[in-house]
Amino acid sequence: MSPEQLADHVANLPLIDHHVHGVHRGPLGRAGFEQLITESDRPVPPWMSTFDSQLGLAIRRYCAPLLDLDPHASAEDYLAARAKLDEASLSQLFLGASGVSDYLVDTGYQGDAVTGVDELARLSDAHAHEVVRLESELEYVVSHESTVTAVPDAFVRRLEQRTAGAVGLKSIVAYRHGFDFDPAEPSSADVLTALDRWYASGETGRVTDPVLLRWLLWTGVRRGLPLQLHVGFGDTDLQLRSADPLLLTEWLRQIEPLGTQVVLLHCYPFHREAGYLAHVFPHVSFDLGLTTMYVGARAAAVLAEGLELAPFAKLLYSSDAFGPAELHFLGATLWRRAVSSVLGGFVEQGDWSEVDAARVATLWGRENAARLYGIG
Amino acid sequence: MSPEQLADHVANLPLIDHHVHGVHRGPLGRAGFEQLITESDRPVPPWMSTFDSQLGLAIRRYCAPLLDLDPHASAEDYLAARAKLDEASLSQLFLGASGVSDYLVDTGYQGDAVTGVDELARLSDAHAHEVVRLESELEYVVSHESTVTAVPDAFVRRLEQRTAGAVGLKSIVAYRHGFDFDPAEPSSADVLTALDRWYASGETGRVTDPVLLRWLLWTGVRRGLPLQLHVGFGDTDLQLRSADPLLLTEWLRQIEPLGTQVVLLHCYPFHREAGYLAHVFPHVSFDLGLTTMYVGARAAAVLAEGLELAPFAKLLYSSDAFGPAELHFLGATLWRRAVSSVLGGFVEQGDWSEVDAARVATLWGRENAARLYGIG
Amino acid sequence: MSPEQLADHVANLPLIDHHVHGVHRGPLGRAGFEQLITESDRPVPPWMSTFDSQLGLAIRRYCAPLLDLDPHASAEDYLAARAKLDEASLSQLFLGASGVSDYLVDTGYQGDAVTGVDELARLSDAHAHEVVRLESELEYVVSHESTVTAVPDAFVRRLEQRTAGAVGLKSIVAYRHGFDFDPAEPSSADVLTALDRWYASGETGRVTDPVLLRWLLWTGVRRGLPLQLHVGFGDTDLQLRSADPLLLTEWLRQIEPLGTQVVLLHCYPFHREAGYLAHVFPHVSFDLGLTTMYVGARAAAVLAEGLELAPFAKLLYSSDAFGPAELHFLGATLWRRAVSSVLGGFVEQGDWSEVDAARVATLWGRENAARLYGIG
Repeated sequence: MSPEQLADHVANLPLIDHHVHGVHRGPLGRAGFEQLITESDRPVPPWMSTFDSQLGLAIRRYCAPLLDLDPHASAEDYLAARAKLDEASLSQLFLGASGVSDYLVDTGYQGDAVTGVDELARLSDAHAHEVVRLESELEYVVSHESTVTAVPDAFVRRLEQRTAGAVGLKSIVAYRHGFDFDPAEPSSADVLTALDRWYASGETGRVTDPVLLRWLLWTGVRRGLPLQLHVGFGDTDLQLRSADPLLLTEWLRQIEPLGTQVVLLHCYPFHREAGYLAHVFPHVSFDLGLTTMYVGARAAAVLAEGLELAPFAKLLYSSDAFGPAELHFLGATLWRRAVSSVLGGFVEQGDWSEVDAARVATLWGRENAARLYGIG
Repeated sequence: MSPEQLADHVANLPLIDHHVHGVHRGPLGRAGFEQLITESDRPVPPWMSTFDSQLGLAIRRYCAPLLDLDPHASAEDYLAARAKLDEASLSQLFLGASGVSDYLVDTGYQGDAVTGVDELARLSDAHAHEVVRLESELEYVVSHESTVTAVPDAFVRRLEQRTAGAVGLKSIVAYRHGFDFDPAEPSSADVLTALDRWYASGETGRVTDPVLLRWLLWTGVRRGLPLQLHVGFGDTDLQLRSADPLLLTEWLRQIEPLGTQVVLLHCYPFHREAGYLAHVFPHVSFDLGLTTMYVGARAAAVLAEGLELAPFAKLLYSSDAFGPAELHFLGATLWRRAVSSVLGGFVEQGDWSEVDAARVATLWGRENAARLYGIG
Repeated sequence: MSPEQLADHVANLPLIDHHVHGVHRGPLGRAGFEQLITESDRPVPPWMSTFDSQLGLAIRRYCAPLLDLDPHASAEDYLAARAKLDEASLSQLFLGASGVSDYLVDTGYQGDAVTGVDELARLSDAHAHEVVRLESELEYVVSHESTVTAVPDAFVRRLEQRTAGAVGLKSIVAYRHGFDFDPAEPSSADVLTALDRWYASGETGRVTDPVLLRWLLWTGVRRGLPLQLHVGFGDTDLQLRSADPLLLTEWLRQIEPLGTQVVLLHCYPFHREAGYLAHVFPHVSFDLGLTTMYVGARAAAVLAEGLELAPFAKLLYSSDAFGPAELHFLGATLWRRAVSSVLGGFVEQGDWSEVDAARVATLWGRENAARLYGIG
């Protein structure tokens, strides 16, 4: 196998994007687009543009040619060309170019603003599978159930029903509380007390109680499907220090006997810590989704750090794209470029063979997810 | 624009060194010089030299030619050549070669040992502006005011007067307590109680009380000038773990409505964390000053990590030089080399255009600071 | 000095492996071998192999040729070729090829499973010196001493006797408790109370009491020999967050007047933090042992991060190999490759001279350890 064959192999690998959201519905003006290419939820200050970022330059570099523009076209030209197509055409264009065979869709975040599982499958001509978010399901149950004591059973039934065709679960405990929670499974009495407190507060929109959040985690683990956890950076509504996956160590020990696989998502800047956990715990895998896209020209450097301690069977690919279909495409494109560069670099420096590099790329981009989620 | 034109552009960019100290007064022997090229305040052990470090090698590589020595001249030859010039000539030589148009001078540290704002301007033939250190001003007020209840108003007046011509404020709460402080603004009663305790202790030389330190921060924020915070590594008198800027997250949220810009200085090894904060909070910028100089041949690698999540409007240049004018020169020289290497590398790998690279270098080295501090 | 001469110099430098364990006794099947090339103590899941890791690929790349196989031979072929030799022949082969002049052997971990100091010297034809583990010695004393009040004196006597010919001490407080311990020296009364509690528990196999662990540290420091501390990643029995060396800052300040040198081992992913401590504290050195081996093709990238703040007099080489003699060889081989690449890179980019690069390599691989331990 030659270096060119290795690059070709990575460029054409049908990826499993094991953690993604839907694509945006309806037209997007400049302000709307700029707000969707940053993790900040604050208005963009008038003295800056979110295009002036690694992600912004990556859009101008890699997405512009799909709109028949030169690479590095200006943000203005890019948005003008984009505005000539409707969102469905844009989605088909970018999803089609991403080379993804399967999307695993987290439907629990702003489900109304973006396409659902079936619509994503249709637009992309790929397979799409659902990942069910634990917190959203509890909030749904609570909004429909007035009796506190009925909630635990109702939640288990709801989860059963919602996951009948799903391939995984997701938790955003990192956002709602952080990983510095008591690792032990809460007792039924503790759960009821916490539910009582929550109902009494009159604010049952968002679950933030640490007892309930860890009850969700344990219930999710008992369900048995792979459990995805948001880890590391994300939007403004986060204490990044509490999203360090090392805080999960004792909880990972306690759930290990139950046999459920845990997947750490994104992880930046704690991706080396994630690699350590994946090294020592058989039931831990991780990805650098979201990260790969946001660090743009630095993707190879960051992905390489994830390839230090991690066993190669524990690496997964995701985009974590949400909104503009450019992001679904960029996640894949930047991952391919970075993986070619990193693994090709190992070959060039004499440490790896091309055959091993190609095999690791396949594990990372596809086979590990196929095994973990039982798909493909 | 060719790669050479990009390199030329960065090499000739007039920098705004937005956080710097004065240059040393009077002659420096070997021991004195060695002690000023380390952050350690401990005597250098007899079995080592601080020249055996990235900074030491950078001095021998980049400063030696300005003294008509070959690059990599020995430390002995370097110091001998240096000793032939007086400090004013050395300062003019190295400041003149740094290509800095504006210095923003923190006058609050060992003001007697180094030149002040005007003298730095004269020696460098550049503009110089003052940055006022909050802790020093409170210590000044306390040393002149015997009545505790008069201190709060006296401090506000003092700050008003001292900042009449200043462009920014600085806090070293990282050294005096760490960032693990209560983020809320203290009440007037709390401040008076803390002042009482401090006066009663009989040791009012250094403010270390966390209530007073955060009162200084809040008072600084209310003053409205950009507020610089020491972040990350520094001298021996520091708990580095408490200088992680993520500890500031909740405080940053609370001050956000006041509209004051906060600048995180140095940041190593928490520069990725600083980049995250600059990404999500519109009022946060940061630099890699001090770091760039100390990591020498590794400057490009470290600066590149700062260029991952950070919006390009949030990057600033500083040297944080203190003492030998070599450091003022090296801060600029190593930054130019590193930025050329990093941004040129993005161009070479096909991710950025030369035009974008030149524009980002200009934002980083000059324009962001000009906008933030209203200078240039 | 040419780049080739620099590479030759590093390739032929007689190393001091200042922290290592013995080589495995008796034959190793595939399962046994796979378990010794991971830090995880969990059974390897049936869907993965520990050969699919940076370390596994490094074994196939660099050890296979010593068994007359092609580089990148398959794991199956490698193990088949290995099985044709007995462990003594394998040890002589790999130890002989490592170019190590002196081994400093930590004898406190699974001493029965691996060779002792003298046997390692004989197999390698190198010098071997002992490093005595504090926790094991206390556990020995406690298993032979039924009277609590006799333990403190008995331990000091035991340590005196065991270290008569030793060159250093070692502590694994990172495993047994973490670095978040009270930094102060415990009183005699506190030690006796803790011993009482331990004896009363009936479980005196492993010392885990934080009072006793820090008494061991202080007693070790008072003994005066260089004290090695496990830092950063290791096996599953660790809270990695508590193995951050910055947690040692206050303890390092308190022991500084006693004049004992402290060596931080491995350090990943906290090696930049270790470099900072080595920068500011004259009595702190560190290595990237274990790390270098486990990160394989990434060794140069990781070692370079250790070369940022650290004075060059504070860098040490170790393999931390345990078990298969491949690891003793790989530690040295990957270090040589990485150091050539990193220091050669500094030369190539114009920052360092070849002569300085060669000198720093010699300090790092040999001379710093020779000075610190008084050997070679």
